[in-house]
Amino acid sequence: MQRKWTSEIGDEDVGKDILLYGWVHEIRDLGGLIFIILRDREGFIQVTLPKKKVPAETFELAKKLKRESVIKVVGTVKKEPKAPQGYEVIPKEIEVLNEAEVPLPLEVTEKVPAELDTRLDHRFLDLRKPKIQAIFRIRHQMLQSVRAFLCEHGFIEVNTPKIVSTATEGGTELFPISYFEKEAFLNQSPQLYKQILMSAGFERVFEIGPIFRAEEHNTTRHLNEAISIDIEMSFTDHEGVMKILEELIVRVYEDVVENCEKFLNWLNLKLDIPSLPFERVTYDEALEIARKKGEEIPWGEDLTTPALRALAEEIGDVHYFIVDWPTECKPFYAMPYEDRPEICKSFDLMKGPLELASGTQRIHKYDMLVESIKAKGLNPESFEFYLEAFRYGMPPHAGWGLGAERLLMSMLNLKNIREAVLFPRDRHRLLP
Amino acid sequence: MQRKWTSEIGDEDVGKDILLYGWVHEIRDLGGLIFIILRDREGFIQVTLPKKKVPAETFELAKKLKRESVIKVVGTVKKEPKAPQGYEVIPKEIEVLNEAEVPLPLEVTEKVPAELDTRLDHRFLDLRKPKIQAIFRIRHQMLQSVRAFLCEHGFIEVNTPKIVSTATEGGTELFPISYFEKEAFLNQSPQLYKQILMSAGFERVFEIGPIFRAEEHNTTRHLNEAISIDIEMSFTDHEGVMKILEELIVRVYEDVVENCEKFLNWLNLKLDIPSLPFERVTYDEALEIARKKGEEIPWGEDLTTPALRALAEEIGDVHYFIVDWPTECKPFYAMPYEDRPEICKSFDLMKGPLELASGTQRIHKYDMLVESIKAKGLNPESFEFYLEAFRYGMPPHAGWGLGAERLLMSMLNLKNIREAVLFPRDRHRLLP
Repeated sequence: MQRKWTSEIGDEDVGKDILLYGWVHEIRDLGGLIFIILRDREGFIQVTLPKKKVPAETFELAKKLKRESVIKVVGTVKKEPKAPQGYEVIPKEIEVLNEAEVPLPLEVTEKVPAELDTRLDHRFLDLRKPKIQAIFRIRHQMLQSVRAFLCEHGFIEVNTPKIVSTATEGGTELFPISYFEKEAFLNQSPQLYKQILMSAGFERVFEIGPIFRAEEHNTTRHLNEAISIDIEMSFTDHEGVMKILEELIVRVYEDVVENCEKFLNWLNLKLDIPSLPFERVTYDEALEIARKKGEEIPWGEDLTTPALRALAEEIGDVHYFIVDWPTECKPFYAMPYEDRPEICKSFDLMKGPLELASGTQRIHKYDMLVESIKAKGLNPESFEFYLEAFRYGMPPHAGWGLGAERLLMSMLNLKNIREAVLFPRDRHRLLP
Repeated sequence: MQRKWTSEIGDEDVGKDILLYGWVHEIRDLGGLIFIILRDREGFIQVTLPKKKVPAETFELAKKLKRESVIKVVGTVKKEPKAPQGYEVIPKEIEVLNEAEVPLPLEVTEKVPAELDTRLDHRFLDLRKPKIQAIFRIRHQMLQSVRAFLCEHGFIEVNTPKIVSTATEGGTELFPISYFEKEAFLNQSPQLYKQILMSAGFERVFEIGPIFRAEEHNTTRHLNEAISIDIEMSFTDHEGVMKILEELIVRVYEDVVENCEKFLNWLNLKLDIPSLPFERVTYDEALEIARKKGEEIPWGEDLTTPALRALAEEIGDVHYFIVDWPTECKPFYAMPYEDRPEICKSFDLMKGPLELASGTQRIHKYDMLVESIKAKGLNPESFEFYLEAFRYGMPPHAGWGLGAERLLMSMLNLKNIREAVLFPRDRHRLLP
């Protein structure tokens, strides 16, 4: 007998025997009648045991069942309008595959709300809640949509090293590793490698992989280990990759709406598909909007959280780009405008007050890049392996990095980015 | 004018102007006639400059072109049976987007073979060779096929942490990290996390991500950073996941044959699609075959490289499973047979003498797992976060890990696993 998921039970099963596996979500014992709500990853089904209609040993076993135990059920499907799915199963056999201990360290039925820390401590139980599992089912769809879209647009999937010898942007936010006799670091971004691949002639690459940042402060928007969606593209500029980015976001929303209806329902969410093109706001305009709302920022400085909130108030909780940033705000590889080199061909993708992605056209000329590295107070010698790729035929190119968790968080209105990660890592959390 | 890749030029372009971007692969200057072979990632095209038919400044520019410079070409397509693709382009305009320095540290035309170390030192140039690029185009297809197959079989893509507090298998081959005030490690396998996700009710998960192993010895088959394709599946046993694995391998071969003909040609390779089911050889039989070939291995010990070579001699350079390994050979989570606990429900997938994947049915009972951890000389206390998931409803489950580079290496007959990685990491190599 082939196993069925609860969601697969339909009219064609009525009167037939089916095999189910799952967890004991709830039990109601009315004496001569026992109801078990069996949960699997696709939903719930009511297993009904009228004492006189099921084998005596099955009835006895059901009486002793403990919540969250794993069971196997073989039984007959009946229509039952009063049951949650419209069907019930009258068991011929129940087998306990693994019994759960009592009491549970965390409730799965969500009757008792728990603190995030408690939930993360017992994440395996927390993830059994349909509302929580829905996040990761939608995350799965998001990743497949991102890849499908990029593959259709000629991007090649790559993997670049996570163990590196140099800080990508010369920052101090790096985790050091003991690598045999040498010191090495966990990479904070695939930036330098995806640029090298442009020199290698790949023309369009993407990588979806972990990045590591030793940021010391705990916020609801930062992780120390995150998944970054990165692209790099030759023979284009910042406008070219912004177009790819906004179309990608729309594709993800469309696919989630089309394929994840059940999970959006579990989350009690309705998604609006963003419209194209996304609004472009220049850095100068952003400063002006913030100033009018009482947030004065000196030209050349990064936008503060209150300034971004002011912007979101004005523009709305929608996707928009902030473009034409001051060159001093952006990393050394950002390409300045020819006619106004104090600003560069750069953009941040925002959803309301949250930054989702960041990108630029890159400097592709060796001499200019060396000067730019020096101007940031960095030593070109530590970028030797990267700089060499610019001396023998580096094409013009542009790219961006998009935070997978940020995208998911903004799409599903999650209050804390840790909700978008199975096993989050922050300054205080290394377990589970 | 929309840019075309060289491979896109066809009869419909004859007589029309097209836009090309690429690298100067070769130049032949015959005085009044110059030939440029332009290379992009999809192939080559001949750009022909008869002095009298192209603008004077374009002809002069072409005379000074340096190999491997990046150029833009706008020109008219002509049929030319003698040209490599059957077409040539007569340029109206050539622009140098970035000039390459002279001399090149590595030849792209492959006329001069180079040592692997030299090639890896200048990987951006090495990767420009069609033969080398073909490996990574096929790798791209391999990854997409693996994901498509697993998604079609109900697997959910997940990402588990790479920064962890405990060794997965208690080994010493770990890279330590300074994680703020704590000591942490780079994960050597997602094993414990994907098992926790079985307790979390995900039922079927996969992850394609980096693993890190501080193996000290340099071989042609080992990497210190590799990409692992991992699955875990509930309500099945080792046989169930072996079936998934062998079908997956066949799917990858089929897709590569169907979609990567050009790249297989660049590699001068013809792929045979393996036939199902793969042969199963027990550990005991393997020992016997090895013994007959002069390789005596005491029962309970791992198969040595010479023994695996002897096996491959007997069985052929095909995919096969070695099953029913001694329990002492396999990690603590391997499920012993009920009736013969000295062997366990385990398998290695081999291609000839190369191990590609390894898997087991897992122990899902808490008490048995604790005993097994102790029996391996490990301390259950350091596995607390993992063991908790077994106390409250862990389903029976099984899984495997498949080395992405091993799969690619065996499919393409690469002599060194470093050929299957863009930027390999080994004991001595941290750059580029």
